[in-house]
Amino acid sequence: MPTSTPVEAATIIENLNWRYAVKKFDATKKIPGPTWSAIEQATIASPSSYGLQPWKFIVVNDPAIRAKLRPVSWNQSQITDASHLMVFCQRTEMSRKHADRLIDRMVEVRGTPVAMLEDYRKMMHGTLKQFEEGGDPKPWSARQVYIALGFFLFAAAELGVDACPMEGIEASQYDEILGLKGSGFGALVVATAGYRASDDWLAGLKKVRYPESEVLERR
Amino acid sequence: MPTSTPVEAATIIENLNWRYAVKKFDATKKIPGPTWSAIEQATIASPSSYGLQPWKFIVVNDPAIRAKLRPVSWNQSQITDASHLMVFCQRTEMSRKHADRLIDRMVEVRGTPVAMLEDYRKMMHGTLKQFEEGGDPKPWSARQVYIALGFFLFAAAELGVDACPMEGIEASQYDEILGLKGSGFGALVVATAGYRASDDWLAGLKKVRYPESEVLERR
Repeated sequence: MPTSTPVEAATIIENLNWRYAVKKFDATKKIPGPTWSAIEQATIASPSSYGLQPWKFIVVNDPAIRAKLRPVSWNQSQITDASHLMVFCQRTEMSRKHADRLIDRMVEVRGTPVAMLEDYRKMMHGTLKQFEEGGDPKPWSARQVYIALGFFLFAAAELGVDACPMEGIEASQYDEILGLKGSGFGALVVATAGYRASDDWLAGLKKVRYPESEVLERR
Repeated sequence: MPTSTPVEAATIIENLNWRYAVKKFDATKKIPGPTWSAIEQATIASPSSYGLQPWKFIVVNDPAIRAKLRPVSWNQSQITDASHLMVFCQRTEMSRKHADRLIDRMVEVRGTPVAMLEDYRKMMHGTLKQFEEGGDPKPWSARQVYIALGFFLFAAAELGVDACPMEGIEASQYDEILGLKGSGFGALVVATAGYRASDDWLAGLKKVRYPESEVLERR
């Protein structure tokens, strides 16, 4: 059974206060391979509704593709200057077969007898059937992808890696450039990661959050 | 300026592999105050689109309210048995005034001259105006809330606290019970946290994720 190695609360909070949405990366600094790999693994380990993982993560390393993505990303410099870039894609089509695929995978990973998973399959079918009857799965899959975006950003912060989530992308242009049309996946949001430039004007500023009394209530 | 105290990659991944969606909590074990506080702080520190924080987090400690929430949560035991429960609420109405409120807060926290923030205000107004013209802000605010859900779950895992995200709630019943009607916020998703029961059947099972080759591509 996996074990836990708790991290100090103060360390976690310190790192989250250190993180911010980087406006200008130092284009000369690259994330070491094992560190980037941990960010990828954290993203893949994200939870999702029923465990259905309605996503694909595309890591774009090719500078030529990055150059094409930049003009369809409000021309933001992070797209080309960050050490690494991940495009978070959502499933644009969902059906009961995605439940069946997950059941197969559960049998494969855990060796669970498939008969023990029939109730779980039925429950997922109940949810997924609506998407075969005209319901749009995109709002649902988008929410799941945003959990993974959170995991990416949290992992980066804990590893001492700077990052920037970027919603300002022309998704259909991304789909075109990345060849996603007809794949059942669509680009949704981007995260860039690397190291802040020493002259990023935003780096030294205090984090702006509403007071706890405004965003948190106790009952 | 805040500093960073990087955590070992192996520790982070170990803790994420240790986490799972707890089905049965040990109702006798409580999360220590400072540890729970760190989970709250991590959630509040979550990033959001433009930094608009279109959310409210309601921590329900009252057993009587928990008992009312359980039947409108598919009667799942975590609702009453977990040490702590947080209801993640989304903004159901958004308008340009929310941008103005954020600008005020930026001035307050950072002391930035308001004139320097006018471009930022305009950019936010451009996005928020659609919600004054009949556009539904809920899909947008829901995505942001799911980042915060990810932060909650990641923080818990790193702190050695078990958790369970719960989408199976009757949101309008939650709104009724928590008195959210007309508040501009609506219940969206719940996270419970505490410690796994020693006989939770799911605790010992391997995490099920699709192989990296299926969910991650490199270009």
